[in-house]
Amino acid sequence: MYRLYEMPASGNCYKIRLLLTQLDLAFERIPVDLLKGESHTAEFLALNPHGKVPLLQLPDGRTLPESNAVLWYLAEGTPYLPRESFERAQVLQWMFFEQYSHEPYIATSRFWRVFVNPADHQEELERAYPKGIQALALLEQHLSERTFMVAERYTIADIALYAYTHVAEEGGFSLQDYPAIRAWLDRVASQPDHIKITE
Amino acid sequence: MYRLYEMPASGNCYKIRLLLTQLDLAFERIPVDLLKGESHTAEFLALNPHGKVPLLQLPDGRTLPESNAVLWYLAEGTPYLPRESFERAQVLQWMFFEQYSHEPYIATSRFWRVFVNPADHQEELERAYPKGIQALALLEQHLSERTFMVAERYTIADIALYAYTHVAEEGGFSLQDYPAIRAWLDRVASQPDHIKITE
Repeated sequence: MYRLYEMPASGNCYKIRLLLTQLDLAFERIPVDLLKGESHTAEFLALNPHGKVPLLQLPDGRTLPESNAVLWYLAEGTPYLPRESFERAQVLQWMFFEQYSHEPYIATSRFWRVFVNPADHQEELERAYPKGIQALALLEQHLSERTFMVAERYTIADIALYAYTHVAEEGGFSLQDYPAIRAWLDRVASQPDHIKITE
Repeated sequence: MYRLYEMPASGNCYKIRLLLTQLDLAFERIPVDLLKGESHTAEFLALNPHGKVPLLQLPDGRTLPESNAVLWYLAEGTPYLPRESFERAQVLQWMFFEQYSHEPYIATSRFWRVFVNPADHQEELERAYPKGIQALALLEQHLSERTFMVAERYTIADIALYAYTHVAEEGGFSLQDYPAIRAWLDRVASQPDHIKITE
């Protein structure tokens, strides 16, 4: 059975739970509390020298960190990852966009506001805000002409970007002015076997 | 013919020149000067709404941004990308590590020190330094037991991480204390058809 080392409220961890569920793969959930330093114990660092979650452990014991690499590994050969080479490159394009231009602003703002004391992170929140808005504006532009991120169908590019976009308001990013994003969030949430981040 | 829109000194652009050269693919280089705002003209934004380089234009006119997505697209089916699924996931793991935990500290520090006035970025440089050191320590640990990043052979994971690691000193990161990284840099630089970032 797969083992998912995770912090349940993390969008990066939720991505993997969502795909595992949609692929109907059984998995065991092992909570790792970052706030209590559990990702930096000697035991955990032996599993993942990066000291981060999510970490997927395969049934044979091998481990894989980096949420989007895990999505790719699990989705290969399934309908959640296109077979055509340029579409595959576009899926990766949006997953790299997510990790470089979206997550560092939209996810971290949520972390500072919800999981720790926001007063300690006021400057960081202010620096992150315009960058988060820039990411949302790009998403809005892209989705205003499309139903899904790539290939006009639901793929792991949607899962990767849905994870933190659908809780962007918890990070202080209102989605009021992004109708195309909101319609896309609804389309993603209505896919078969969708689960919530709180499940 | 491929067209590469690039800022030649950028490591993200160099990655693609290096792989195109090693794959013996002809390409035209089109300089885009970020410092003069050339990545935000209406013409360029029509090609790449992200307003960034590198951007690869395929012979048929389609365009692909995000350096590591471009590497993957070009390397698929060649010796630079493994065929085995877990090794492929590990290549992606390290490319996501590069964009999330390495480039934002090591590449941006180089940018602030070499391409603009470092005095304007002192605080950012100080914030980036410990994070860059953390990335280098992880690389050192990984490479101390290996010849290359993944699968004991030269892949696009090496190209992705070589691009900014080999010029880390320009960003203020001495490699003196990282013997495994330095030995790996030499191995990468001695691959057939290697080119320098200044070529």
